Amino acid sequence: MEMNDLELVSIKEVYITKVNGFESSSLLDILSVEEPLEIKISYGSETEKTHKNISVTMRTPGNDFDLAIGFLFTEGIIISYQDVKKIYHIQTDCSFQKKNIVQVDLADNFIPHLMSSDRNFYTTSSCGVCGKNSIQSIKTVSSFNPLENPKLNIAAEVLYQLQNKLKAAQSSFAVTGGIHASGLFTIEGDLVLLQEDVGRHNALDKLIGTALANNLLPLNKHILLLSGRASFELIQKAAMAGISVVAAIGAPSSLAVELAKEFNITLLGFLKDDRFNIYNSSDIR
Amino acid sequence: MEMNDLELVSIKEVYITKVNGFESSSLLDILSVEEPLEIKISYGSETEKTHKNISVTMRTPGNDFDLAIGFLFTEGIIISYQDVKKIYHIQTDCSFQKKNIVQVDLADNFIPHLMSSDRNFYTTSSCGVCGKNSIQSIKTVSSFNPLENPKLNIAAEVLYQLQNKLKAAQSSFAVTGGIHASGLFTIEGDLVLLQEDVGRHNALDKLIGTALANNLLPLNKHILLLSGRASFELIQKAAMAGISVVAAIGAPSSLAVELAKEFNITLLGFLKDDRFNIYNSSDIR
Repeated sequence: MEMNDLELVSIKEVYITKVNGFESSSLLDILSVEEPLEIKISYGSETEKTHKNISVTMRTPGNDFDLAIGFLFTEGIIISYQDVKKIYHIQTDCSFQKKNIVQVDLADNFIPHLMSSDRNFYTTSSCGVCGKNSIQSIKTVSSFNPLENPKLNIAAEVLYQLQNKLKAAQSSFAVTGGIHASGLFTIEGDLVLLQEDVGRHNALDKLIGTALANNLLPLNKHILLLSGRASFELIQKAAMAGISVVAAIGAPSSLAVELAKEFNITLLGFLKDDRFNIYNSSDIR
Repeated sequence: MEMNDLELVSIKEVYITKVNGFESSSLLDILSVEEPLEIKISYGSETEKTHKNISVTMRTPGNDFDLAIGFLFTEGIIISYQDVKKIYHIQTDCSFQKKNIVQVDLADNFIPHLMSSDRNFYTTSSCGVCGKNSIQSIKTVSSFNPLENPKLNIAAEVLYQLQNKLKAAQSSFAVTGGIHASGLFTIEGDLVLLQEDVGRHNALDKLIGTALANNLLPLNKHILLLSGRASFELIQKAAMAGISVVAAIGAPSSLAVELAKEFNITLLGFLKDDRFNIYNSSDIR
């Protein structure tokens, strides 16, 4: 597949005033960059193409192609890396920005699954939006059968080390304190992939996009570590990638737990260096 | 305006396994409920109505009408509380859910500003998505002129108390640890409004919806406290409500700071009980 990337800026230096008690000082600080990214696709035969704007998301620039591919995959719009023919940034005349549009040209004659994108997994024609129906519609779109997941038997010692390993591996822009991370580990606790973004759904899409591009899916022999809380949306993306163990530093939501149970995903929350909660499990020893 | 609300459930009890070191125990825990909410509007003359699905968001049930009205206002779709004639939950036949659709009937002959919703503030026809252009488009839609904001001269002592006041006031479901809060305070540090949600944008929409319904806008003599980080989207909503001081417990993004500067919003980050950072200010003494 062809790629043509641009230099992207993920952090920005600004002067701030730091107030401590009743003293203040001026200093140079680092912020995480947040900019909109539009994802566009084209598809059809070699001679007749259809163009469609798929999504606008606020993201931290960097790994935009992983983000776009991960998003298209976790939304069920593409089902493999081979469905993508070419991916590139569209350059515009505007002097403010040249890097906020990613164009994905899909493989000739591939028909993207746009229905599921329009529904966005939340709506069914029969009775509107509904958590239970959302879970059912993910089941119909997902490529992987969670019942085929191997039993992993992960040791608690491994889990207790994950948070520090993630922090140690985060890039310099983690110093902004304003960034979410998604990390993929082996069951022995070795870091395989790490992605960061101001949006936690983007961090996970970037990670899944990278995994897809490297032919690593389904991720059913790994642990996904989320730096924040576990929402429905994150577990949905994990389910689409066949991830069988998700550990979050924060709390899960009710619907995240329901989805994890339906997909046989081990879901851990409030993971610290000496404790965690199990919301659904078949894999901890 | 007519309202007809249903009983909504914000927390859910589940059995979990708590692992501490190498010991584990089973106990009843509380999760924040996350369910999709669809917002639909109808508008037109008394005899001919147009119906439109506006948005689906994952939210914590409760204060759904505040959420819907706040969302329509912060997206620029309505400009006053008088633009709403009736608001109610649509009941469906599905046994799983009866409370996930809010229908907003707009006032007869009111034309909703749907263009800005389609653009979602991020896209301009000339050059696609762009942070700088997003800021300009908010300026054209916002009802309030930030240059008219009064000078507030907020004392640091007041700021240092806000986080504890917010925590003390949070409802019982704050015990889930999985919820975001938005709090509105006077410049003397008295809590005026508090809203909670699994989505921080929803917590703020609920707060702004309540303020709009109570004729409190513009909120230019108050402090908005955000329990998490300050993203562009949150500062955009604050700008639409005429809020002039935003304090976040976490970090702001680059675009949040740029927007705050354009709108003359005082923006504080990493607010603790003895320190904070000033990213933009005219109001701290």
